[in-house]
Amino acid sequence: MNHLPLPNGFSAAGIAAGIKKKNVKDMALIVSDVPAVSAAVFTTNQIKAAPVMWGIQVVEHVGARAIVVNSGNANACTGRQGAADTKATAILAAKRLGVDPKNIFVCSTGTIGKPLPMNKINAGVETLFENLSTENGLDAAEAMMTTDLVPKSITAEIEIDGKPVRITGLAKGSGMIEPNMATMLGYIVTDAAVEKHALQCALRIATNASFNRISVDGDQSTNDTVIALANGKAGNELLTQDFKDWNLFLQTLEKILFELAMMIVKDGEGATRVVTVRVIGAASNGEADDAARSVANSMLNKTAWAGTRPNWGRIIDAVGYSSAQVQENKIDITYDAAPAVRGGMAFTEASEEELVKTVSKDAFTIHINLNLGNGEAVVYTCNCTEKYVQINVE
Amino acid sequence: MNHLPLPNGFSAAGIAAGIKKKNVKDMALIVSDVPAVSAAVFTTNQIKAAPVMWGIQVVEHVGARAIVVNSGNANACTGRQGAADTKATAILAAKRLGVDPKNIFVCSTGTIGKPLPMNKINAGVETLFENLSTENGLDAAEAMMTTDLVPKSITAEIEIDGKPVRITGLAKGSGMIEPNMATMLGYIVTDAAVEKHALQCALRIATNASFNRISVDGDQSTNDTVIALANGKAGNELLTQDFKDWNLFLQTLEKILFELAMMIVKDGEGATRVVTVRVIGAASNGEADDAARSVANSMLNKTAWAGTRPNWGRIIDAVGYSSAQVQENKIDITYDAAPAVRGGMAFTEASEEELVKTVSKDAFTIHINLNLGNGEAVVYTCNCTEKYVQINVE
Repeated sequence: MNHLPLPNGFSAAGIAAGIKKKNVKDMALIVSDVPAVSAAVFTTNQIKAAPVMWGIQVVEHVGARAIVVNSGNANACTGRQGAADTKATAILAAKRLGVDPKNIFVCSTGTIGKPLPMNKINAGVETLFENLSTENGLDAAEAMMTTDLVPKSITAEIEIDGKPVRITGLAKGSGMIEPNMATMLGYIVTDAAVEKHALQCALRIATNASFNRISVDGDQSTNDTVIALANGKAGNELLTQDFKDWNLFLQTLEKILFELAMMIVKDGEGATRVVTVRVIGAASNGEADDAARSVANSMLNKTAWAGTRPNWGRIIDAVGYSSAQVQENKIDITYDAAPAVRGGMAFTEASEEELVKTVSKDAFTIHINLNLGNGEAVVYTCNCTEKYVQINVE
Repeated sequence: MNHLPLPNGFSAAGIAAGIKKKNVKDMALIVSDVPAVSAAVFTTNQIKAAPVMWGIQVVEHVGARAIVVNSGNANACTGRQGAADTKATAILAAKRLGVDPKNIFVCSTGTIGKPLPMNKINAGVETLFENLSTENGLDAAEAMMTTDLVPKSITAEIEIDGKPVRITGLAKGSGMIEPNMATMLGYIVTDAAVEKHALQCALRIATNASFNRISVDGDQSTNDTVIALANGKAGNELLTQDFKDWNLFLQTLEKILFELAMMIVKDGEGATRVVTVRVIGAASNGEADDAARSVANSMLNKTAWAGTRPNWGRIIDAVGYSSAQVQENKIDITYDAAPAVRGGMAFTEASEEELVKTVSKDAFTIHINLNLGNGEAVVYTCNCTEKYVQINVE
């Protein structure tokens, strides 16, 4: 099995602590040898899990050193005990590293409303440190999984300031996924030296163009978190937004987050197809976004995409009840390159065969032109099969 | 088979015109012997089917005489041809009755974007008139069905101004159902004499408390229509909002629409359970409504309700991402009479057995108290099973 190349000065571990069923990895650890600059974005859900409330404090602190993750229990809606448990987890990891607990991010994902099994978490943290290695990144990605079928990770290597730099991303997410924001867990570690404010900006930009553009089921979770750590081990001059290599860094970060986001959509609970919904010609970008989300989140569309019929009526219906202004007789809809709707009606020369072929593919794009203005937006989603229901009934 | 008692002066028919597959009823007709006062509410979707655009004109006209309905084809997104086809249908029925076409409502439900098969519609209208009878109300209800499993109808008898009055309701709806508004077809016919403005008010009030409070899948259709016809055959003094029996009439109308709405939820595509989501203690009624809809439309909740676990974490999550203000530590959740959440956390004395028993019932209510203010709202929804996906993939 290949290992995941981590940037210089980072190590990781993923182990089975017994939180989920036996012998399934459920705790992960990512450690930077040296204090790292950190940036993070968190769920916009008003109900925020204890580790999210903790993370909001950690990112304000100088010199992050580690991220402790558990799956199988979200530590959400757990009150003061939940906050105390998150803090205790951070204290334990901080002791092993000889640092302040405020240098330790903690993330939880899984069932809401159950207290963390702290005896297992405590033992788990010890085992994680015993298993720390620069080779164990994949174990960490695996240990974050809940209903995910595959671990999600990616590494890029670029040159910044003449120095080789590595950026590695790990993520989990499959259900309870809707953009704004992350609605999943994502970690980006790099050995580049990056100024804190610049890193936060870059993470926000890259998140908006990736995790915030995907939707599996329209539900926003209580625990969503994306954290970036930059430890400077590459030895480059501190990256700021004015530095000549900034764009390369930002583009690489965007690419990594985008790839991770696509892995999540592809691994959407029960999903077998990735559908890109692209709206152009809206009165504004905001309206284009609303129309695209309306289409992408419609259960009638998501189930239609599990079949092999274009079913554009359900698309135009969802556009119509979105908050975007539309004029029925101006709407054009095209599947990849196959026109289906022109001026709000079935395109008379449409090739039914080509349309069926297009929507039967593993991935296709629905182009919706409202022909009203210059607003545009794109949302990435997946189809909804009976499997989605099976997974969530259980 | 029982027939549906229609009010005095109304007759109906339901026949197979060949729009759907062979020998399945797909056209309905309701006729008033004399000009009736009409009221109507229509879909708020920006994409409105041709028959909706036609109905908006008819309801402004004095003396409605008939409603022609077809299932199997929505006549939506069909442009000028669609508008001409609706008008031609009205003209045909108007000729049979010797009246102006503007006295004829036309409704269509079914597939979007396909031209109406006018040869079948034309022949169907003729057959409908040949089959008109005061005994054929149930046939009409059956002919409106699309994915409905059962026809939906109900009759009430009351005394207004000392005269016996009958109010009969027919409806169809199963998928593409979300309130605001009707997102289905509903017809109310009565022999009461009712002043037009009062009838419109009553229909609006009753719709807001019934069809606008149900949700099957959160999709608003292009064709939703509720029409009320009052032909005055009962011989009562013209009912206005000042008349002493007004409240009895309004309450009966509300009851009929509510019962029809509940039939639609119960017959939701693939549904096996009716779930009432009741939010109280919100900062405003509007916020309560938003929180209730957020819970009722969450796929994670709807699939959870197909199982037998309370899964309140998904409820509090959906409340949290709604636009309603919430304070996590104030939220209480109770299933029927079984408390599950107090102060945003699992109720320590909750009986898991009682909770499981409650959510295993055919119908139960989720009471959510935000404990912030006096706002309240209720939404009626159903669970989502694999069957829903199966139906909509096909």
